[in-house]
Amino acid sequence: MSNQVPDTAHKILAESVGQIVLIKLRGGKSIRGKLKSYDLHLNIVLDNAEEELGDGSWRKLGTVLIRGENIVVISPM
Amino acid sequence: MSNQVPDTAHKILAESVGQIVLIKLRGGKSIRGKLKSYDLHLNIVLDNAEEELGDGSWRKLGTVLIRGENIVVISPM
Amino acid sequence: MSNQVPDTAHKILAESVGQIVLIKLRGGKSIRGKLKSYDLHLNIVLDNAEEELGDGSWRKLGTVLIRGENIVVISPM
Amino acid sequence: MSNQVPDTAHKILAESVGQIVLIKLRGGKSIRGKLKSYDLHLNIVLDNAEEELGDGSWRKLGTVLIRGENIVVISPM
Amino acid sequence: MSNQVPDTAHKILAESVGQIVLIKLRGGKSIRGKLKSYDLHLNIVLDNAEEELGDGSWRKLGTVLIRGENIVVISPM
Amino acid sequence: MSNQVPDTAHKILAESVGQIVLIKLRGGKSIRGKLKSYDLHLNIVLDNAEEELGDGSWRKLGTVLIRGENIVVISPM
Amino acid sequence: MSNQVPDTAHKILAESVGQIVLIKLRGGKSIRGKLKSYDLHLNIVLDNAEEELGDGSWRKLGTVLIRGENIVVISPM
Repeated sequence: MSNQVPDTAHKILAESVGQIVLIKLRGGKSIRGKLKSYDLHLNIVLDNAEEELGDGSWRKLGTVLIRGENIVVISPM
Repeated sequence: MSNQVPDTAHKILAESVGQIVLIKLRGGKSIRGKLKSYDLHLNIVLDNAEEELGDGSWRKLGTVLIRGENIVVISPM
Repeated sequence: MSNQVPDTAHKILAESVGQIVLIKLRGGKSIRGKLKSYDLHLNIVLDNAEEELGDGSWRKLGTVLIRGENIVVISPM
Repeated sequence: MSNQVPDTAHKILAESVGQIVLIKLRGGKSIRGKLKSYDLHLNIVLDNAEEELGDGSWRKLGTVLIRGENIVVISPM
Repeated sequence: MSNQVPDTAHKILAESVGQIVLIKLRGGKSIRGKLKSYDLHLNIVLDNAEEELGDGSWRKLGTVLIRGENIVVISPM
Repeated sequence: MSNQVPDTAHKILAESVGQIVLIKLRGGKSIRGKLKSYDLHLNIVLDNAEEELGDGSWRKLGTVLIRGENIVVISPM
Repeated sequence: MSNQVPDTAHKILAESVGQIVLIKLRGGKSIRGKLKSYDLHLNIVLDNAEEELGDGSWRKLGTVLIRGENIVVISPM
């Protein structure tokens, strides 16, 4: 990976700081929360994060650091 | 990966900007939407994206950033 | 990976442009179609592509870009 | 990966040394414990670590070194 | 990976060109055929290749290019 | 990975040479034994190693070399 | 990976040439045989190799080249 956030990723992430984003992880789980920061590896920090449980409800996690390489999709909500 | 979008990938993606593309992900899921942008890692941004549900219906996601390394197939529709 | 298509891969691919090839993907799925182009990462573009369904039938996909790292086997038909 | 802990990861980890963190691993398991140290590969050492068992209880592990590449989410508790 | 076929791999492959080899792939499938060529990534081309079906029989594939990174075991027969 | 054992990993491993460690592998298996040596890839050699069987018992393996990239957790016992 | 066999791996492998070793692969299969050679990628050649079948019996494979990246554990017997 280059030394900069890829342009395509950067634009959508820069516009989403402070907004709620939905992140889908490898293996099928989802986490949503307020995008606090990100870096060039697409590591993501969310505040007020929640993880989706199997029954469609959400469990509070608080602040989370998500390693970029486990992320499949990032979607501003 | 080199510093440029591989030629083969670049041609088909450049022709598809603004068009609907179907993206098949590792693990078997599919997402479709209007191709907004892409970069040299084949990270993809789609507008008006939808994900395929198990029963053949589609759920709206809005704008999504898809990490290139999770993509198996990209197909203009 | 080096900056050139590996020799062994290059020879069989160069001879197959314009021909029908069968591509087996990680996870067990297969796609076949007319080989349009390829690059040094073994990314492949097929025209008139079809994917194999579980029941042995094939579904039309049209033109597809297949990321090289998901390919297990390429076989000219 | 660069030669430094990515900024986004560094901030949340630096603030959490000596605190309890929950770590979710690839494959779905979780480990929690007191964050003792970390490095640029996001390798993590926890003291008084416990692993989550299937029934919601936790089993004591003591001190553990967790390889960074197996970590999906790090969450201060 | 270095710029040369690793010695250990090279010796056994060089001796096997023109011979029948059995290749076991990640995921448990096997392909056998006459070793035509290989390169430094251990990409393999087989002629008269056949893939093992679940019931112990073999299906003809013809010439195949197998990407090295999906290969677990190569065994001259 | 850098040319040195990451600091965080090094400290806990250096203190554990000659001690019994429990190693959890990708896929869920565990191996325990006396830590004999390790290197910068976190390859590990254990003496008097045992692997955990499904029923909670342990089977003797003797001396084992464990490739670092398959290790999830290392825990001194 | 560096240009040399990691020390820890090298010592145990050098002592085992000509001896029977048991190799556990990703995915849970095992192969045993007489260690003929190895290289810096931990690619392994075994003579008189056998693979473990599900029922505890062993099937003869002859000489095999095992790609290092699929190896979890190497154990001299």
